[in-house]
This record gives sequence, structure tokens and C-alpha cells, in this order.
Amino acid sequence: MEKGRSSASFDPKDLGTIIYGSKQEMEQAIAAFERVENILGDDNFKLPATYGDLNRQQMLLEGLRAGKATFQDGLKHNHSIFDYTTHLFSLGNANPCGLTAFLFTPFLKLVGTDEQVAHWLPLAESGQIIGSYSQTEMAHGTHVGGIETTATFDRETDEFVIHSPTPTSAKYWPGGIGYSASHTILMARLIIDGNDYGVHPFMVQLRSLEDFKPMPGIEMGDIGHVLKMSYNDTDNGYAIFNYVRIPRTDLLSRHASVSQLGAYTSVPLRDKLVYGGMLNGRSVIVRAAAFQLAQALTIATRYSVVREQGHSLDLDDSGETSIMAYKHQHYRLLTMISQAYAILFAWKAGNLAHADLRIRQTNGDHSTLPYIHALMCSLKAWSTQTAADGAEEARKMCGGHGYLAMSGLPEIVASITATCTFEGENWVMWGQVGRYLLKGMDATTLPVDMAYIDQYCPADEEQCRAKGKDFLDLTVLVEIFKHRAARLIHEAHAKVSSEVGKGMSRAKAQNKFGLELTVAARAHIEVYILEACIQQLALPEETASHEIQQVLRRMISLFGLTVIASPIAPYTATFIGDGYFTYSQIFDMTSLIDDLLMELLPDAVALTDAFCFTDGSLRSVIGCKDGDIYRRLMAWTKQLPINVEARKNGGRFKEGWELYTEAFLKENKGFAGIPVRAKL
Amino acid sequence: MEKGRSSASFDPKDLGTIIYGSKQEMEQAIAAFERVENILGDDNFKLPATYGDLNRQQMLLEGLRAGKATFQDGLKHNHSIFDYTTHLFSLGNANPCGLTAFLFTPFLKLVGTDEQVAHWLPLAESGQIIGSYSQTEMAHGTHVGGIETTATFDRETDEFVIHSPTPTSAKYWPGGIGYSASHTILMARLIIDGNDYGVHPFMVQLRSLEDFKPMPGIEMGDIGHVLKMSYNDTDNGYAIFNYVRIPRTDLLSRHASVSQLGAYTSVPLRDKLVYGGMLNGRSVIVRAAAFQLAQALTIATRYSVVREQGHSLDLDDSGETSIMAYKHQHYRLLTMISQAYAILFAWKAGNLAHADLRIRQTNGDHSTLPYIHALMCSLKAWSTQTAADGAEEARKMCGGHGYLAMSGLPEIVASITATCTFEGENWVMWGQVGRYLLKGMDATTLPVDMAYIDQYCPADEEQCRAKGKDFLDLTVLVEIFKHRAARLIHEAHAKVSSEVGKGMSRAKAQNKFGLELTVAARAHIEVYILEACIQQLALPEETASHEIQQVLRRMISLFGLTVIASPIAPYTATFIGDGYFTYSQIFDMTSLIDDLLMELLPDAVALTDAFCFTDGSLRSVIGCKDGDIYRRLMAWTKQLPINVEARKNGGRFKEGWELYTEAFLKENKGFAGIPVRAKL
Repeated sequence: MEKGRSSASFDPKDLGTIIYGSKQEMEQAIAAFERVENILGDDNFKLPATYGDLNRQQMLLEGLRAGKATFQDGLKHNHSIFDYTTHLFSLGNANPCGLTAFLFTPFLKLVGTDEQVAHWLPLAESGQIIGSYSQTEMAHGTHVGGIETTATFDRETDEFVIHSPTPTSAKYWPGGIGYSASHTILMARLIIDGNDYGVHPFMVQLRSLEDFKPMPGIEMGDIGHVLKMSYNDTDNGYAIFNYVRIPRTDLLSRHASVSQLGAYTSVPLRDKLVYGGMLNGRSVIVRAAAFQLAQALTIATRYSVVREQGHSLDLDDSGETSIMAYKHQHYRLLTMISQAYAILFAWKAGNLAHADLRIRQTNGDHSTLPYIHALMCSLKAWSTQTAADGAEEARKMCGGHGYLAMSGLPEIVASITATCTFEGENWVMWGQVGRYLLKGMDATTLPVDMAYIDQYCPADEEQCRAKGKDFLDLTVLVEIFKHRAARLIHEAHAKVSSEVGKGMSRAKAQNKFGLELTVAARAHIEVYILEACIQQLALPEETASHEIQQVLRRMISLFGLTVIASPIAPYTATFIGDGYFTYSQIFDMTSLIDDLLMELLPDAVALTDAFCFTDGSLRSVIGCKDGDIYRRLMAWTKQLPINVEARKNGGRFKEGWELYTEAFLKENKGFAGIPVRAKL
Repeated sequence: MEKGRSSASFDPKDLGTIIYGSKQEMEQAIAAFERVENILGDDNFKLPATYGDLNRQQMLLEGLRAGKATFQDGLKHNHSIFDYTTHLFSLGNANPCGLTAFLFTPFLKLVGTDEQVAHWLPLAESGQIIGSYSQTEMAHGTHVGGIETTATFDRETDEFVIHSPTPTSAKYWPGGIGYSASHTILMARLIIDGNDYGVHPFMVQLRSLEDFKPMPGIEMGDIGHVLKMSYNDTDNGYAIFNYVRIPRTDLLSRHASVSQLGAYTSVPLRDKLVYGGMLNGRSVIVRAAAFQLAQALTIATRYSVVREQGHSLDLDDSGETSIMAYKHQHYRLLTMISQAYAILFAWKAGNLAHADLRIRQTNGDHSTLPYIHALMCSLKAWSTQTAADGAEEARKMCGGHGYLAMSGLPEIVASITATCTFEGENWVMWGQVGRYLLKGMDATTLPVDMAYIDQYCPADEEQCRAKGKDFLDLTVLVEIFKHRAARLIHEAHAKVSSEVGKGMSRAKAQNKFGLELTVAARAHIEVYILEACIQQLALPEETASHEIQQVLRRMISLFGLTVIASPIAPYTATFIGDGYFTYSQIFDMTSLIDDLLMELLPDAVALTDAFCFTDGSLRSVIGCKDGDIYRRLMAWTKQLPINVEARKNGGRFKEGWELYTEAFLKENKGFAGIPVRAKL
């Protein structure tokens, strides 16, 4: 392990300052993690409680314990790192207290009036109430317009009556609503005098703050183990409302309000603005995808350095070969490490663009909303899919040991893969981006982010002219990415337009070419991602030393080249389908990839160390920083409660013997005359 | 649901006879599943115990209960279906009694002498002992040669002394050795007079049959939740041996024996033959991959028919659109259904080839062993990866509900993904096949399975001549598959040879081009798989009616065409890299895929019904045959123990409140003066 670490060309903390935003933010984050791990009693030779014999209720207790510790640490030390992550770096909504900052307060700020925000925000931020966000119903997820829960105005009492009118309208999935949240922002159809004004947000208290019993008319519960793997520290739940009354003033009224007389008023674009909170959620998810992918890769990299297997490379060293030496292992690891960085850098760029939108919006300028919406949809879909696939690949790269819950990998995989379907299912996201691209193509002028498309005419049959080391020039890669995206977008647009021209409805034509649009949308965001990576090279010398610049440049080259020319990457066909490349150009790129791999291999450990500074945040028996895998593996194994218990019962699983095994053997006439050992 | 089912062009049971082998086998399997589900008390409106609050020990008890029920059913009704599967259709080794038939008896037959087999086999088959197979050690998996456990001959007592000489030599992972197995076949290094004769198999009794306590000198235990998701019904375990004595005659001696005087004799090829048991394991895994992928797709198909979301297709129906109507949904579902069938058909062909080898081997002819070994490696790697990716995709296609443990999907995904790394890690498998291909290319005559490669010269720049409906001709697809495979194999071979020519060692050159060899090996086995599918069309009319023939032909076309031309499939670049296709040919194929999708869509439910006849085998709240998703979802949810318990405590999670939440709110000065509702 030490060898793998000391070979690095740079200090991981120097890269960490870029990853975490600044030296100060990095140090603050590390200190917060260390404090919380300390409170939780983490000790990397002690089996973490969650790998023991916990049942559902005990797991939730662990979540409450950790949630309380992280929330209170943020309050006490005045930082917000745990607003978006848990102490394990999974998303903040993975613990029962994290929903407050992850969804409740951002959404409140978006949809509450100044007075409503002034009332609720301090209560939430100081932990006097525990927030949640209730949108999804049993039969209604992505299509928010389908929500069935009603909030009917009662003029006589000046109240809304919240009701779940059908079995399928039960709220189902919202984090924390099982047993942990005291309040929720509830999405329900606003009904006045029998007229349906669409889905609106309401503040609803779920539980008494005196004894935490449900408020009258609300039935809530947990929805059980989720994947049995992840998100079990919180209580995704269900809620059924039976004519529950809330004051009229608890309609969150920034964009729409109802007067005492029942008059409804709303601002233009209300139906779009109300979902603006999702932009924030998606941005947080992208950053988390980078970190969680990096976590999985940290474990796999450390394991690959320590694990030895076979002699098949006939290296000079005595002993077996570190599996890191195998091409298929380090090729995949380094490629995926470059992807984790690419996601992070793309998040940085996207986050700035999103911040710009928020500033414009306070001045009433919503013009960039469609662009930011499409950007966040694509970044969310691309990042979560890349991270989920990568984390699962990293898990497999640790062989059997990656399959152990104790490796930490199954939980990371399960946690990332959840983000592929929540806060906007990825295929639906691509569909929305596809429609954005079609709309852009139909506009008289292309939107700014699509302007490059004009540089490529649809019938373009030009050949890429670069060769050899030209492909290390990142502007050459951008050119290749743009060429491909422009071609795919032109083609998809032409196909849809042709069907519409023949009389097919636009919706049906878009559905018919849904896969082509998805592939085009992916290509489009990959241009953005590559350019966002390149922006990082413009960091000043005091932030990024020569060594850091060098390793970043190599990683970005590796990222770009493997997207185009990796024999195992998906979608590479889209680069070569039109004969843009010759075979010899692909060979040139392959050879550069090989060079980059050799240059980056000594930095592999440091590249992942730079994301993960504390052992507790990984909770992995095979991923601790010291590389002391096998000793820890046996130590944790022996501490498993089933083994502790068996040692008290003569080394047997007593109940199993008494309830089943003894009867099994007896039924089959075991015992009688079976020699303990066959003497033949 | 009824609509989705009644639209089928055939009766699922007619297809089931092909899937299960014959009408009789299908009916026997269905009856066995129904009996066992009945014994276990399955009821599709009752929450299965495993989704409740079980801790590790309770999960293992459930496994013992189910294992006993399945084993005894096989004994009583004289069938072997549960030898290879559990009552959930996961692999037999997923329950504590299943290891006996899955690994113990096949291996015993392979390596035991006739006398040894005569002694142990009846004991195992009648359930008088419970078998397991102990090969993997903490630090030694794929590379069997690295095993450290020793079996040292003691001439004085005529015994072997089994010992774990180092911490890393603990057996770690073997199924059932934690607490369930009474006996194991143990792989250990045979040492005589200080000489190491390599790894040999020994019969070792692990536990007393009187009280199931460990035999003297053996320490065993469980390795905890595995993925927390799957294989938790059995006890993958560890075992440490401290100078444990077994009689000399318990060396399983078909291929090597030691005389009383310590003289060692062995047959030629012993070191290869001893691993022949793995061929059987891999074959079983391939079949299981087909069934488990089909299970995941059955759930996703049923869900997609029932689930409605959005109005975006402006169909004429009132209400929302069934998500099955979305192109990205049915495209992926049907493509993956075709893959499940392709895996099954490839298994059938591979199984026959393997049976042929076994017959030859009884006559001392091992000549086809290298071919069968390469075939099983590739089928195992291709099938498990395809099934694992497909099952995870199917899980995502059910959105949030697919993330619920109760959906059954997480367990199926976790169960399949395990097979990507066990019984031969897939990348290692591809490496072995790659070496087989290189060896074949270097031979004076190509091996029979590679003979087609000669038809394509390396510099071949010929163009595919097919167009339009030509691509429905399956021989055209075979031609395309062969062209690609031949080219990739030629290229990889040329690259390796060139480096070797320049002085690089063969091992290093193979490692350098490890990815290229993997891609070539994949292409080679895809030729086999496509041809195996086509063989199924030769079934006689009485086995396969016209309707069945038609649906099979469509599925095989869809399989072949999507491997080549799907915009979202991996590896498609390898078909077009050399300019073999023009763009217009890809368009022709895309259009045929669209036609096939429309033809197959009404059959989607029936195509999956044909694999899964009983609800209990899926254990899925959203995948039951009746499609009654939402009612069952709420019914199971309310039965979760945490909710049952909360109802007794005023609707709260009492311990959470008392231990954490109350203190949390109080610390943050909650209660005092917070209005239950904001009146603004």
C-alpha cells in the first residue's frame, strides 16, 4: 500500500482543495467527518453496527443516531457539509434528519412567501422541526400532473381539507414520512368550488411535537427495507390523509394564493416555477455521484494494489502479481477515476450556471430556465448512470470480497443506483432533453448551448484530420465530440421532422425515435462535460501546481480518448458510424491511451485518496487507507453477532440445529451407522 | 393485465415445454414449485417473512426451512429440479442444503474412486449428510494454484494432517461451511516428506452428526450479510484448520493416490481434470442466468403493462398511458427478453457439448476438454454479464418501486450479479478464452469451432451486400457475426504476435491486449449463441407449433439485429469499424427492429409467463400474475413489522422517539412556542 501511495507525482491534499472547492472547505469537511466518526464510535478494527444483526427497526435507530450527530455538528460548528451528504458521503436524504436541508428548506425558499419563509425557515434550520417533502404517490411518480391528493378549500372555516381520495393516491416513497418527520411540504391538487387549479404545495404538520403521535386523520408508516442495501437508515414512508384540515395560510403562496373569499391568483409560469426545487436536487445528486463513484473506486484501487493473484505476468518480483498490474484492471479503474473527476468538474460548471439562473430569477428573468432545466436533466442522467455502472464495476473488480456487505461496496452501489430513478427517472430526463434539442433545432436561431451544431452541415462527410499525438490536444477532442453530437442531433431531428411531415403527431414521432434522441442528448452533454473539464486547466498556479495541472491534463485526455476509442465503452459506434475516423486513427488513440495509463498508474492511489480522507466515510473492511485487508477481514468476521453467539453454543448455530438440521438428518435416517470417517 | 395477456399469439405453456425441456418436465417443475410454496405458506397477499424485520440469524433460519422443504420434496417425489435452483429459481447454492447437489456430489463423482463414490454418494443424495465444497481462501480465489491450506501425510498414523498455516489461508466464502454443512470436499496442498504435490481434494467431516458441534481443531463461522441482498438464506462461511487429522483414504483418489508407504501416483492431466467440476458449475450458472433474467423481465413486463404514467403519447384511450407504450420501455424489455431466450438456447447447445465430453472422458478421451473449457468460460461470462445488466435495467424500468426489497428485483439482481464473479471471475474467463483463441490461431489447423475464421482474410475489406428484408434471413446475420468475429480475432492475434516478435513475453503481450482479446472472445461466442438459437427453429412441428416457430423466429431476429444495430447496445462499434456496413444498411436494420417490436409487443406478457408459472417463485409485490399491484403493495406495506408495532404505540416508532427524536428537538429548543400551524 505504501508503495502504491508513495509513487504519486503529487500530494492528494493539493488535489483535494480543487475537489472540495478550497483548502479551507476541504479542511472543514475533513474535520467535520472526523468529529462525527468519533461521536459515532467508528474504529476501523471494530465491526460497524450496521453489518451486524440489525433488523429494520434497529437500522432506523442507527440512522436516527447518525442523523442527529451530523445535524448537531453542522449547527454547532456552523457548516453545511452534512446538508448534502451523510457521514458516509451518500446523499443527505439517506438519513432521517437530512431531508430538512436536502429538500424541505430549498423548496420552502422557492415556494413560500417572505412571511412564510420567515416563520418556517428558522424552525427548520435550527432543528426545532424535522422537514420532509411529499410529492410521489403510489401510482404517480415522474408525471407530477397525475397526482391525486386533494386540498379542497373550505370557505366557512378558512381551511384546506387534505384528502387521499383513492387507494393509489397514498403518498408513497417520501423520505422521512414514515416515522421521522414532523412536517412536510405536501403536493396536492388545489380545489375551490369544485374547480381544479392543479398541483400546489402546502405546509402540513405530520406529527405532534409533544409526543410525535400522528396528527388527527393522518396514517403513516414505513415502506420496509429499501433494496435491503441502502437508504435503510431513513424511513421512506407512506401517508394517507383522511380529511385533514390545515389553515388557508399554509398554502405556500409565492406563486399562487387563495383569498379568504376563495379567489385564486397566480403568477405567470407558476406551473413551471413550482418545480424549480428539483433543479437544486438534481445538482446535489450530480456532486454526490462524483463522490460516491470516487468512493467505490477508492476501495477498488486500494484493494487492487494489495490483492495478489497468479503469476501470469512473469514479473521479476517474487510472490504473486498485484492485480493492479493486469491491464483489464487498471484500464477500467483509471478510466472510471477520470469519469469521477469529469462528473465533479461538470457539476462545478453546471452549479455556476444554476446560480446565475437564481440571480436572474430574483430579478424576474426566467429566460434561461429551459436551458438550465435541460442542462440539469442531462447532467443528472449522465452522471448517475456513469457512476452507478462504474461503482458496480468497481464492486466486481474486488471479486468475491466486493460482494460482502462489509466491503462497503454493495451499499455504495445501491445508493448511487437509486439516483438513476429518483428525482427524475433517467430515460424520462433524456426524453426531456431530446425535446429541448428538437425545439432548439426548430427555432430560427439555435440556443447558445447548441450554437456549435451550425458548424456541421448534416451531409458533412468530412474526415477527421488529426493523427498521432494530435489527439492529446484537447481542442481536437472537443472538435470530435462536437462533430459527433451535431451529426446525431441533425439526424434525430431529420427523422422526427420527416414523420411529422408525413402526418404523425409530434409526440408519437418523438416516441418513435426515443432511442436516437437519447443517444443524441448524451452526445450533446458530453461536449459540455469535456469543455467543463478543460476549464479546470485554467486554474491559477497557486491553486493548481504544475504537478496538479499535469495529472489533471492526463486525466482529461484519458477521459476524452476513452469515450471515443475504448474497445469496451458504450456508444463508441456513434463516433465512427459516418466514417469520420479511419482505423489507423483509432489505433493512434489506443496507443495514446496506453501511454496515459502508464503515466497515471503510479498516481492511482493518490487520485482516489484526494476524494476520501477518512476511513469512517467508507465503512469498508477492504478499503481502509492502511491496506491491512486480511487482518481486518478476519477481525470483523469474528465479531459478527451470529459468530459471537455460536461461540457460546459450542460453535454451532443452535437454533438452526434444533429447529431444522437435526430433524432433517433424522428424517433421512442419518446418524445410524454413518461412520464419521470412511475407512475404505 | 388481462388485455396484455390475451393479446398473445400463443399459449405460454407451449413455449414452456421448450424452455423446461419437455411437457413432462415443465409440469413436474410447476407441481414441485406449487408444493413447496404451499409448505412454506406462500400467499400473495401475505408479506413474505424475508421482507420483515429478520436479522441475520432469522434469515438463515428461513433458509434452512426452505432448504429442508425443497430437498425433501425432491427425495419424496423423485425429481432433481431443486438440485440446481431454489424455490425462487436462484441457484441451488443459495440455500444451505443446496450445496450438496450443486457442488458436492458432482465433484465427488469426478474425483472419487468408485469405492469412495459408492460410500459417500448415497449418504449425500439421501440427505444423511450435508455437503459443501471448500476451495477459495481469504487471499486466493481465481488462482487455485495459490491455495495455502496443507494436507501433510503422516506415515505413522496413516493420516493426512489438514492445517491452515497462515491467516490468509483461512477458507473464506464456501457456501454452507459457516454452520450448515456436515462434510466438505476440501482443496489443499498435498505434502509428503516435505515435497509439495500441488492442490488435491480431500473429504473432511466438519461437524459431528450427533450434536453438530465442530470436529476437533476446526473453527468455523458465518461471513455475514452478503450484499445484504442475496445469498443470505445460506451461510457462506470461513473455516480455519488446526492440525486436523483425516484418514489417508479420504484423499479423493480417482486421479491421484498415496500409498501406505507414502508413494504418490497420479494419472496424466490430473491438474486439469481435477477442475472439471467447474464445467458443471458453469453450465448450471448459465441456465440460471436465463431464468433469473427472465424473472426480472417478467416482473418488469407485468409492471409496465399495468403502470400508467403521463399523457404524452396522445393515444385515444382515456386515462394515462401504460408505460409499455413508451418506445424506450418496450424496446429494452423485448430486446432483453430475446436475450433471456438466447442464453437458454445457448445453454442447451453447450450442455449437449458438455455431455458429449463426459461420455468421451469415461473412455479416456479428453481431446475436446480445451474446447469445452473455452466454451463454458465464454458462455458463463457472456450470460452472467448480460443477465446481470439486464436484470438491473429491468429493476430500473420499474422506477422507484423496483428499488423496494418487496419488488423482488433487488434480490434477483444481487443474485445474478454474484455469478459474474464466482466460479471464475468474468474478466479472467475472457482472458482464458482469449488465450484459447490465440493458441488456435497459432495451430497448423484451426480448431473446429474456429474454422469459420479462415473464410475471412485479415485484410478483407469487403462490404456486406444484404439490404432491406435480407436482414431477416438469419443466415445473413450469422455471416455478419462471423465476419466481425474473424476480423477481431485476426487483429488481436496480429497485435500480440507483433509484440512477441519484438521480444515481449507472451504473457505480457496478452496482458497488453487484454481488452482487445476480450472483445474478440465475446464476438466469437456470439456466433455460437446465434447459431444455437437458430438450431431451435429445427424443432419438429409437434414440439413447436407454427405460432411458436413464428414467435421464436421473430425473437431470434430481434436478438441478432439488436446486437448489431441497437443505438444503445455496447460493442456495436465492432461491427462497423471496418466499413463493412453503410449507413443505409444500419437504417434498414433499425427499421426491421421497429417492425419486429410491433409484432412482438402483444406477446410480451406471454413470452415472460412462459418462464414463470408460479407467483411464489418471484416473491414480488409488483410482479404477481394478476397485475393487482397497488392493492398488494399497500397490503404488504401495512404488514411490515415496524408498522404493526407502531400501530400498537399510537402510530409512532416508539424507540426512535424515546432514544433520539425527543432529545433532538429538545436540544434545539423545540416545543416551546412553536405553533402547530403557522397562522400568518
